[in-house]
Amino acid sequence: MHGLMQSNPINLVSILEHASRWHSEQEVVSNTVEGGIHRQSYAATYSRVTRLASSLARWGVEHGDRMGTLGWNTHRHLEAWYAISGQGAICHTVNPRLFSEQIVYIVNHAEDRLLFIDLSFVDLVAELMERLPTVESIVIMTDRAHMPNSSRFDCPVHCYEDLIEAGDSVFEWPDLDENTGSSLCYTSGTTGEPKGVLYSHRGNLLHAYATCGADVFDIRSTDTVLMVVPMFHANSWGLAYSAPMVGAKMVLPGPHMDGASIYFLITEERVTKAAAVPTVWNMLIAHLRESDLPLRTLQEVIIGGAAVPRSMIQEFDRKYAVEVIHAWGMTEMTPLGTINRAKPFTRSLAGDDLLDAQCKQGRVPFGVDMKIVDDDGKAQPHDGKTYGRLLVKGPWTVERYYKSDQKILDDGWFDTGDIASIDQHGYMQITDRSKDVIKSGGEWISSVDIENAAMGIPGVEIAACIGAAHPKWDERPLLLVKAGEQQRPSKKEIRQVLAESFASWQVPDDIVYVDDIPLTATGKIHKKPLRSEFRDFFLD
Amino acid sequence: MHGLMQSNPINLVSILEHASRWHSEQEVVSNTVEGGIHRQSYAATYSRVTRLASSLARWGVEHGDRMGTLGWNTHRHLEAWYAISGQGAICHTVNPRLFSEQIVYIVNHAEDRLLFIDLSFVDLVAELMERLPTVESIVIMTDRAHMPNSSRFDCPVHCYEDLIEAGDSVFEWPDLDENTGSSLCYTSGTTGEPKGVLYSHRGNLLHAYATCGADVFDIRSTDTVLMVVPMFHANSWGLAYSAPMVGAKMVLPGPHMDGASIYFLITEERVTKAAAVPTVWNMLIAHLRESDLPLRTLQEVIIGGAAVPRSMIQEFDRKYAVEVIHAWGMTEMTPLGTINRAKPFTRSLAGDDLLDAQCKQGRVPFGVDMKIVDDDGKAQPHDGKTYGRLLVKGPWTVERYYKSDQKILDDGWFDTGDIASIDQHGYMQITDRSKDVIKSGGEWISSVDIENAAMGIPGVEIAACIGAAHPKWDERPLLLVKAGEQQRPSKKEIRQVLAESFASWQVPDDIVYVDDIPLTATGKIHKKPLRSEFRDFFLD
Repeated sequence: MHGLMQSNPINLVSILEHASRWHSEQEVVSNTVEGGIHRQSYAATYSRVTRLASSLARWGVEHGDRMGTLGWNTHRHLEAWYAISGQGAICHTVNPRLFSEQIVYIVNHAEDRLLFIDLSFVDLVAELMERLPTVESIVIMTDRAHMPNSSRFDCPVHCYEDLIEAGDSVFEWPDLDENTGSSLCYTSGTTGEPKGVLYSHRGNLLHAYATCGADVFDIRSTDTVLMVVPMFHANSWGLAYSAPMVGAKMVLPGPHMDGASIYFLITEERVTKAAAVPTVWNMLIAHLRESDLPLRTLQEVIIGGAAVPRSMIQEFDRKYAVEVIHAWGMTEMTPLGTINRAKPFTRSLAGDDLLDAQCKQGRVPFGVDMKIVDDDGKAQPHDGKTYGRLLVKGPWTVERYYKSDQKILDDGWFDTGDIASIDQHGYMQITDRSKDVIKSGGEWISSVDIENAAMGIPGVEIAACIGAAHPKWDERPLLLVKAGEQQRPSKKEIRQVLAESFASWQVPDDIVYVDDIPLTATGKIHKKPLRSEFRDFFLD
Repeated sequence: MHGLMQSNPINLVSILEHASRWHSEQEVVSNTVEGGIHRQSYAATYSRVTRLASSLARWGVEHGDRMGTLGWNTHRHLEAWYAISGQGAICHTVNPRLFSEQIVYIVNHAEDRLLFIDLSFVDLVAELMERLPTVESIVIMTDRAHMPNSSRFDCPVHCYEDLIEAGDSVFEWPDLDENTGSSLCYTSGTTGEPKGVLYSHRGNLLHAYATCGADVFDIRSTDTVLMVVPMFHANSWGLAYSAPMVGAKMVLPGPHMDGASIYFLITEERVTKAAAVPTVWNMLIAHLRESDLPLRTLQEVIIGGAAVPRSMIQEFDRKYAVEVIHAWGMTEMTPLGTINRAKPFTRSLAGDDLLDAQCKQGRVPFGVDMKIVDDDGKAQPHDGKTYGRLLVKGPWTVERYYKSDQKILDDGWFDTGDIASIDQHGYMQITDRSKDVIKSGGEWISSVDIENAAMGIPGVEIAACIGAAHPKWDERPLLLVKAGEQQRPSKKEIRQVLAESFASWQVPDDIVYVDDIPLTATGKIHKKPLRSEFRDFFLD
């Protein structure tokens, strides 16, 4: 028996429409690509989205078409998100920092018909165009005054502001099934070709509701949210939906993510909450230290994308009275998986115990379920020590990849590729990537833990720990070290330090000094070539 | 094009399953009907729900069956909610305070197959049974030791705890379409027969997500939520779903809603947040005053169901440092419509201006849209002065009533039957019920405003203001006054007081002293008989 509530599906654009009706004067502030701060209200933003959508429809965008973007976080990029998915097309955010080969692969795989690009990427895209046969037109996200010479492109080139101006002030948004795709983002795997994750209106909607929760991102209309996390990364943590959902002021850094620019925005716009990866916060903290600056308005920083260093939590707390909220997610999860918010027991913690608790990636909101399993798929205990492969499921977790028939779920569960522990209170902690964990005699050794400990030793610039084949133990850890220019610690010194934190069977059997350690496009250690090179190290 | 997220529909019981997995030790505390405090964990609650569901399935509950409840807020009533709707049946909460005639009408209209009743209602139900032909069995929500003599019922009578004990520890919850009905609640209209509102899993789910929002109920796992609002009222503000969704501790008052009992629970269980109608808070405040007691743990009271008196907001704030959050909703809205949370401009308010702002019913969360219209359906301005009929829509607003084919939406909008204004910031304030508003020469006069002002005059016990027919002005206000036993203010005195707050054309043309003013079962002024009696007052 069906309930008798209004059951019309919800189109994501209705979030922005709500903001324009009920938080009409609240601002969206952007640090622009052209230079200078731009500010406009939610009412103006929605009106521009309507105009853009009608221009796109006139151009010929159809339901399900993929529209690519290569853009920084600006009001225009935000408008494009809503205008594209609101009309049932797919907003495909391309990471412009990828290698050209990857960009070409991704745009061709998605078959993007249009590319919305920032001025920063005109050269890049112009060079790649002849290898992007599906792209029919380019939209440059700028105004007429800043339009570059478009003769370099062998296709029609539109000025974004012209499209807005030519658009109608009314647009009839289509009734979309709630499971309609809204946006597409490719994972930049360290192995294999990038894989497309096709988000849905429903997944994004539930994710937005959940993340506005007091125990999740805790966003209010009185907040000013600085969204540093790039809109081409992991659905940008859903902030483009959650901030307008509650009518919070949005602050967008454009291409300027250095410490000084971020500090300027926080201070001038009175930012209360900010979201970014640890690298950004490192730059901000360095800037604060240099000039001995305070953070007066900022209350909370939500950090994900990589484990938050303990010292960062401590420094934000003690020096700036800013709370670090550790979160974890992935492109395949829209992206939120867990968040580290207090539970009743947390009140009893202080000092190092509290810090230990804050270093964990956190617990699941309703809408995510997770478990850890061993290699046989057997669920592991929640004791905070045992670790296993981390599996997740829920309405904003991927079912399969774009254009792939490959079944990736096991009984409904998605394998994150991470190795984690879960404690008795439900707090998850990532230990390693499963392809990097070292399996020695049936026991697992975390490569990340060893690397972190090694990188704390003076003179170690980068350390990579990999499993090398071993006749008796299957695999044994091998540590590769790139030493700094001034100093090179001896093998003995490194071993001694590691022996303080690890059981003897976890300490690497050998240490090799290398001239360089390869990194991926997103700055992570690229272990695949290292594993090929050193696979037989202990066998030789 | 469909997104590629996991798109399985969500059954409401998964909220409790989440609580049992991730907040397993968090407590559900009940002040029981039998006497004494009962406490159990979410893990135990879910396990009992599973057992109850399997017992009910064995008994023969089928998809879509209506199962009635006449119960106070206890752990057992909570379990029944989840066990019934989790298996695709409809949990029909009957208000035991209604007149017998209404209970009979409602149970017969719903065709309830089972009735879950508290010990308090054994006599009531036993007397009505012969008029309830669809009811096949009674479940008494108690344990074996407290079971009454069941021979008074002419049908099988089950002991609730026996059903739990006989149930299986595993139950396969069905895959339900998200629009499946979950629960049924009848509006106790002051006119006409009660009308059934059939809630859905989807509506309740989105409502729960929304209400956990930082800018809505703001509930966290560290909260202890006292849910005084009865589970047979207006879907109990959704707290039975939102509290477990975040893993908050739940405190349920059972049948004990007097000031002393509520104070005991708040103090002993360290309640941080509580939800109830103004009447309950009046009783609590009277109790606090009598014994000069503090409220140490309570941070926020959410008040709805009737307008919150200004003095109550003030007293909670100044004397107890408890913030009053004014909310408005209705049975037809699952029930949340608006909530009075701060917006950026609120920071600039203080004193009387702040209090004025807090007296409004508030603004809509995402998931509710509202507008005010005149008699021709034309939208009225948001200026905080103009008032009109309040229309609403959204995924948790009713589409039509149970077993009724009557179209009640106008272009998707539901007429709340309230008259309200909306200010420039989007804050709505209820002025009157539309059937009570007095239409004099094309202008509307709020009967409620006049009544509230009149009831502030010493010697006025109850005042009712109605529109009586008038040859020139269509209607003119007539004030009916029931004076106190000690004192009866003169007509002149009353007119003088009213003239201070109202324009001369708004002041009632006459005042009539009456011996009694009829009230409805829920304690509201019953204006229908007054209107019949005094309709021609100015014509005679």
